[in-house]
Amino acid sequence: MHALHCANCGTAYSPFELQGVSACCQQPLIADYSLRRPLSRAKGIDQADSSMWRYGALLPLLDEANKVSLGEGFTPVLALPQLAARYGLRSLILKDEGQNPTGSFKARGLSMALSKAKELGVRGCIIPTAGNAGVAMAAYCARGGLSATVVMPRHTPEAFKEECYWYGAQVELVDGLINDCAARVRQLNAGGELLDISTLKEPYRLEGKKTMGYEIAEQLNWELPDVLLYPAGGGTGLIGIWKAFQEMKKLGWLAPETKLPRMVAVQAENCCPLLETYLGHQVNCHSYNGRPTLANGLAVPRPLGEPLMLEVLRESNGTVVAISEEGMLEGMRELGNHEGLFVAPEGAAVWMAARRLLADGWLHADERILLLNTGSGQKYMSNVAGRAWA
Amino acid sequence: MHALHCANCGTAYSPFELQGVSACCQQPLIADYSLRRPLSRAKGIDQADSSMWRYGALLPLLDEANKVSLGEGFTPVLALPQLAARYGLRSLILKDEGQNPTGSFKARGLSMALSKAKELGVRGCIIPTAGNAGVAMAAYCARGGLSATVVMPRHTPEAFKEECYWYGAQVELVDGLINDCAARVRQLNAGGELLDISTLKEPYRLEGKKTMGYEIAEQLNWELPDVLLYPAGGGTGLIGIWKAFQEMKKLGWLAPETKLPRMVAVQAENCCPLLETYLGHQVNCHSYNGRPTLANGLAVPRPLGEPLMLEVLRESNGTVVAISEEGMLEGMRELGNHEGLFVAPEGAAVWMAARRLLADGWLHADERILLLNTGSGQKYMSNVAGRAWA
Ligand SMILES: Cc1ncc(COP(=O)(O)O)c(C=O)c1O
Ligand SMILES: Cc1ncc(COP(=O)(O)O)c(C=O)c1O
Ligand SMILES: [Zn+2]
Ligand SMILES: [Zn+2]
Repeated sequence: MHALHCANCGTAYSPFELQGVSACCQQPLIADYSLRRPLSRAKGIDQADSSMWRYGALLPLLDEANKVSLGEGFTPVLALPQLAARYGLRSLILKDEGQNPTGSFKARGLSMALSKAKELGVRGCIIPTAGNAGVAMAAYCARGGLSATVVMPRHTPEAFKEECYWYGAQVELVDGLINDCAARVRQLNAGGELLDISTLKEPYRLEGKKTMGYEIAEQLNWELPDVLLYPAGGGTGLIGIWKAFQEMKKLGWLAPETKLPRMVAVQAENCCPLLETYLGHQVNCHSYNGRPTLANGLAVPRPLGEPLMLEVLRESNGTVVAISEEGMLEGMRELGNHEGLFVAPEGAAVWMAARRLLADGWLHADERILLLNTGSGQKYMSNVAGRAWA
Repeated sequence: MHALHCANCGTAYSPFELQGVSACCQQPLIADYSLRRPLSRAKGIDQADSSMWRYGALLPLLDEANKVSLGEGFTPVLALPQLAARYGLRSLILKDEGQNPTGSFKARGLSMALSKAKELGVRGCIIPTAGNAGVAMAAYCARGGLSATVVMPRHTPEAFKEECYWYGAQVELVDGLINDCAARVRQLNAGGELLDISTLKEPYRLEGKKTMGYEIAEQLNWELPDVLLYPAGGGTGLIGIWKAFQEMKKLGWLAPETKLPRMVAVQAENCCPLLETYLGHQVNCHSYNGRPTLANGLAVPRPLGEPLMLEVLRESNGTVVAISEEGMLEGMRELGNHEGLFVAPEGAAVWMAARRLLADGWLHADERILLLNTGSGQKYMSNVAGRAWA
């Protein structure tokens, strides 16, 4: 069983009712579990399940019958020997979230959120999205028998919109970025008939995302990497993975002396609110203005989870890096040509961030480096067509 | 260890040398294993590996160091409860090969073939393809450090060509279908510098494909479905899955009395050579002419594996069904709207074939039905854009 608390002030909320942000602080609600009861890895992990649901014991679903799943998660961790050789690295690995249903890691959060929505009697959902989360929501709504309304920037590649149509979702197009879509969601859902599945505005997408942290630990045989690089937009992945590490420490699945990875948030130069705050150029992101980027998922100018992301960076001795549009294309070419991976621009940015940090000396060639590729390049094709050569 | 024999006359060939079709009959070479030695499921399956390589003991690779992998296989088997309810079916399941690297089941065959190619010292490969196999070959060549030449019909959606470019492959476009591409391959590779990876013209793609059969048995807890529907172009999947069933019987992994599924080959009305031969409208496919179809992978007018496919249909009491273009779109809509799956037209054809066979009484509502969805709809977007509504 789990409980919910406000990320800002700790006030408790009921996990048996539908929840949005906390009433006290309008901040994200976080799920807690009783992690002190003895739950061994052997008992806590369902080895027969090769989806993220193998960690069901640490997820908030009460009744299996409500599970809305397409087989998401437990994606491969791949060595990148050719790039490692090229840059003289001892250990370079990549977790390939492009192999999820709907082609991105968003499948995890939406599988979890839709399962809980179903459990709590929700009939329809709405989401503002940079693209991938909307496609995933449309798919899991169809799978669970709920209605779906997806609100995305008009400039999002057609492939994202079209895929939503095939799932029978309503699609609303908005001039602007994801924050403008959020405003439109408030308008469309003024009566509150639909569950708002915005990043961190309901507590369960985060729980789905945290399974990446459990998988990384299990797949690396409980030896974490030295550095983990992640493309941060709304930040649920960064926050979720870190939450998983903390939970596993409490559970004793990670030895108490385990050094956790330094967490690197990777952004786009065109939209890097976290970097600007991190560098002290602004107090927070509340009035940051971003521009579109090839990495649609990174065009999140004012993430609600900014304080939580900054906390992860501080606690882990991490940092923030922003990558140019040209840099992302270069990263896509390198991963494609040398490792056979056609990654999303977000994933390419992560690799370019590793290169940057190596050049700067922040990262060392003998450290164990994990890149998180959050999606397949497939739906970005119209963003990058004709750019396979420099 | 394995041996090779000619599918037609049984003549033995060395597994330690590069092989194409058999010199004796110009027919496919088939790999055999010593299956009589006691190899239990527990010993034969590497439970720690959640890719197709968990069945490495039944695959032809000699040295792990040559493995060229992107984490392919061990894809989910999903129940389709909403479609089952809609059509009154007792048990309807789908294996989702769209979650493979490069978005299709072709990843399995190419991972295996490229691993063996690397093991045998090959430096470059060439392939005639309807699309997916070419993309997979480009990816695995990049991953393995080999050069790639992909020859595909000019009308293939741009997404297939573009993805090849990102892997650094050479792409040749041909007016016509895959048989015309095969002619161009012979021309381009007249000197034999490149390994020709055409379907069934080298023995190892089939071995990769057969892992689907092993997975189906293991994932269904060694109880096979009554009927298995598969979209047959060149036919490696159909032949490979059937081969796996035979091997598992010999190994004792399937009880000797296990009833094997009736195997259904699904084709496109626009190109259905197997159906025409099966119905006795032609002696064989040698002079069949097909037309393009939304299901690019089914546009294979003259499959080399026709005799082997017919054998599988005969041995399994199976049949052949051909689906119209409109039918495929309807299937895509149904799987999208009711189960959250955006499948390739090939996968949609398989579902429509099940509906047809149910209506005909060949399939019964209380039989356990397995649909093989061979790919994601993603790269077919330009084929189907704007058709999400009837
Ligand atoms: C491919 C991809 N990577 C990264 C992100 C950013 O993820 P998060 O919002 O969890 O930080 C997104 C969000 O849309 C995405 O689609
Ligand atoms: C998605 C898809 N399904 C089915 C097929 C047919 O496969 P096979 O040639 O193994 O019969 C193909 C071949 O290109 C394909 O791409
Ligand atoms: Zn509060
Ligand atoms: Zn022969």
